[in-house]
Amino acid sequence: MRAIEELTGLLARLPGIGKKSAARIAFHLLRVDGSYAAALAERIEGIQSRVKLCPVCGSYAEDETCEACADPRRDRSTLCVVEQPQDVLTLEASREWRGLYHVLGGLISPLDGVGPERLRIGALVSRVRDEGVREVVLATNPTVEGDTTALYVKKALEGTGASVSRLATGIPVGGDLEYADRLTIARSFRHRTTL
Amino acid sequence: MRAIEELTGLLARLPGIGKKSAARIAFHLLRVDGSYAAALAERIEGIQSRVKLCPVCGSYAEDETCEACADPRRDRSTLCVVEQPQDVLTLEASREWRGLYHVLGGLISPLDGVGPERLRIGALVSRVRDEGVREVVLATNPTVEGDTTALYVKKALEGTGASVSRLATGIPVGGDLEYADRLTIARSFRHRTTL
Repeated sequence: MRAIEELTGLLARLPGIGKKSAARIAFHLLRVDGSYAAALAERIEGIQSRVKLCPVCGSYAEDETCEACADPRRDRSTLCVVEQPQDVLTLEASREWRGLYHVLGGLISPLDGVGPERLRIGALVSRVRDEGVREVVLATNPTVEGDTTALYVKKALEGTGASVSRLATGIPVGGDLEYADRLTIARSFRHRTTL
Repeated sequence: MRAIEELTGLLARLPGIGKKSAARIAFHLLRVDGSYAAALAERIEGIQSRVKLCPVCGSYAEDETCEACADPRRDRSTLCVVEQPQDVLTLEASREWRGLYHVLGGLISPLDGVGPERLRIGALVSRVRDEGVREVVLATNPTVEGDTTALYVKKALEGTGASVSRLATGIPVGGDLEYADRLTIARSFRHRTTL
C-alpha cells in the first residue's frame, strides 16, 4: 500500500511520533471526516507562510510585528530574553510578564559550533540602549548552554545602565523533593528566599 | 497566535496526540523544510481519494482491486477473515499468509447495536461457495466480540464444505508468563501443542 506507507513515513518524521503511532494516525486519517483531513492539510501547508518572525523582537508574528510588540499596554522599559520564539508563547501562557521580549535565536554552544556572533545579542544591546530599557530578565533554560549564554549577555549589557536578572531556578511548584535532581536542590538552597 | 493555535487544535484531535505533543509538532512544522510540510499536507489531503476499498475482499486498495486479490501467485482456495481493512496490512507484514482475505467491516456487538446483518458475512458465504474456497481462517481479535463473531461466521459457513479454523491464542513470542493475563494463560493451556 504505497499511499499509506508514504503518509506513514512522513508522519513518523514528526517529533514524538514513532512508526506505530504514525501508522495509527494514517489509518485514522483514512477513516475521518474528509473536511477535517482537508483542514489539517491546509493548516500544515500554510503554517510557515502565516507565521513569520517579528522584526523587532524575533518572536512569532502573524502581523507586521508580534502581539506583544504591537500591544500599547505592554511595559516597553523591560525586556525578557529567551532562546527561541516558542519560549515566548510558553511564557505568555503564564500571563505573568507585562514587558516585551527579545529572542536570541539559540544558545552559545561551542560543541555545536554556535558562538555568540550567531545570536541576536548585538540587536539586544542596541534595543536596550536606544529604547531606554531599564530591566532585562534572562529567561534562557537553566542548562550549561543557557547559563553560559546568560552570563555572556549580562556582560554584553554592561554599560547600558539596565539592570539584568535571571528567572529563578528551584523545586517546581507542586513538585516533590524526592523527584528533584541534585543540581536543582543545590540551586534551590543557594537561592533560598527569606520568609 | 491564532495560526499556531488552530494547527495545534487540529493536531490534538489525532489519536495518541495530546495538547503538549500537538504544540510540539506545530512548532516543529514551523521550522522544518517547507517542502516536507507541503508533502505531508498533500498526502494527508489525498489519502482518502487515493485509498479505496477492494470490491472483492473489502481491504484497502489503490488500484481496481487490492494487492492480494490482484496477485496471481496467491492461493485463491484459502481465505483469512478479519475485522477491518488495516488488519490485512498487519497480517501481510508477517509474510506468513499466502491466501486471500475477507474483511467483515466490524464485529458483532449487541451493546453497540451491531448485528451480523451489518457485516459482510453474506458476501463471505457467497465467495466461499462460488469460488471453491477450501479453508477459512478466522483472524478476528481474541476478545468477546471477536470470539462471538468467529463462532457466528463458523455457523454461517456450515454446509459450504470449507474447513474453518481460528488463529492461535497464547503467550506472545518473546513474552513473559509474568506479564500474561489470566485468560491468556488459561487459553494457552487449553490450546497447548504437543512437542
